[in-house]
Amino acid sequence: MRKILIPLLVLTALFACQKQAPQAQSAPEMSHAEMMGSFPAPKYPIKNVGILLYDGFTTLDAMGPYQVLSEMMGVKVFFVAKQKGLIKNMTGVGIQVERDFSDTDSLDILLIPGGLKETYTLQEDTATLDWIRKIDQTTTFTTSVCTGAWILGASGLLKGKNATTHWYGKDILRAYDVAVKDERWVRDGKYWTSAGVTAGMDMCFAILNEVRGEAYTKLAMLDLEYDPAPPIKAGSEHNTDKNLVEMMRQMYDSGIKPLMKK
Amino acid sequence: MRKILIPLLVLTALFACQKQAPQAQSAPEMSHAEMMGSFPAPKYPIKNVGILLYDGFTTLDAMGPYQVLSEMMGVKVFFVAKQKGLIKNMTGVGIQVERDFSDTDSLDILLIPGGLKETYTLQEDTATLDWIRKIDQTTTFTTSVCTGAWILGASGLLKGKNATTHWYGKDILRAYDVAVKDERWVRDGKYWTSAGVTAGMDMCFAILNEVRGEAYTKLAMLDLEYDPAPPIKAGSEHNTDKNLVEMMRQMYDSGIKPLMKK
Repeated sequence: MRKILIPLLVLTALFACQKQAPQAQSAPEMSHAEMMGSFPAPKYPIKNVGILLYDGFTTLDAMGPYQVLSEMMGVKVFFVAKQKGLIKNMTGVGIQVERDFSDTDSLDILLIPGGLKETYTLQEDTATLDWIRKIDQTTTFTTSVCTGAWILGASGLLKGKNATTHWYGKDILRAYDVAVKDERWVRDGKYWTSAGVTAGMDMCFAILNEVRGEAYTKLAMLDLEYDPAPPIKAGSEHNTDKNLVEMMRQMYDSGIKPLMKK
Repeated sequence: MRKILIPLLVLTALFACQKQAPQAQSAPEMSHAEMMGSFPAPKYPIKNVGILLYDGFTTLDAMGPYQVLSEMMGVKVFFVAKQKGLIKNMTGVGIQVERDFSDTDSLDILLIPGGLKETYTLQEDTATLDWIRKIDQTTTFTTSVCTGAWILGASGLLKGKNATTHWYGKDILRAYDVAVKDERWVRDGKYWTSAGVTAGMDMCFAILNEVRGEAYTKLAMLDLEYDPAPPIKAGSEHNTDKNLVEMMRQMYDSGIKPLMKK
């Protein structure tokens, strides 16, 4: 049983190490050590990445970054929740989470994914906000994807900083005294925040680039074949028909407004 | 407990329906029915999408398409495995799967994600291949992401057809008498196949576009803010330094070659 999270690169590298005899037979092949020696050492000593899960999270907000950050060799990427066990995504699919607030008191990178109603509600969850503030004292980077920035904002950690969130969620984030930017992702010191859902992957490739450099990032992008080709140029509130943007805004409002206090 | 998978659009739409009184107060807002009436009816009667999971699957191969196809209103998107229970991704994280081969004998869309070693091994798993062939007789679209095409190829369903897979996996797919194309995704009749990992999302937005049309697809792209901006232009074997491509190929080889029979 493999309980420990092993990135693909480590996994394949392990195989490379296991079968040194066949490798030795083929002269042009590089050993694992030779391959890895061709990259600069990591710029930051990242050893673990914790992704905060909670019932109602948006699947891809968590799983995109999970996949991208798992490309960092020697780094454990895992999920953390208030309590261990099955945490359900927005549509009820359970993810088995084996770390919780009680056994996780430090992280090198913390990532907070977004969602809709449950994310909004978490802005007032003291246990979650306290844990985030505690973990933040230990992180190299504290990050959020999409409306996860609402929770990070509520923790007070983004006060006076530049940040971003899902296009719908900007006013809610602004209320935390945040300078909300219209960018795919924003870095302000140790705080990285991304726009909606899929922007989390772009942000995480940028983090990978910062930590391991461009050649390593290209290797990871090649592994995940990340050379996107959307069928339509769209996906931003600026390149989408205004009536569609308003329609979507009304749909979100109908989920969020009943939760808002007067 | 929400066992039924409800796409975000349905979820938010449900809220819209629940609070008709406040909506009636604000004149410019559209009702849910008005919003949805502005889209053409689906071109195909898609009611359910099954994503095949197996131990060792690549997380994003499954979760990217899961998120994108969940945008189809009124469609249930779920995971299916040979046996119900926790299915572990490539790094050991468990996903709770509540459907299996015994209770799933038809699907409108079948999607097969990829992986590395376990995906390679599944090419000889008779129970899986039999189930895929049976399900394929009922599908509107049979699809694969990344090396999931190896399994689809092994089932014989791609024989004589155009298809694609992860850049590393093309020779393995070609062995099934498939015309392997160098494209982000390929459609040949009812068969859709994508290149590696992240290409699955582009393919699924293209499927969404085919089923629901461009305006609806733009709405979904806006929801997921899918306007990608990678930090580096890379991710394809054609735009990545040759030495990095070779390095990656050797890493994959070291996982796969020990599994190959003479």
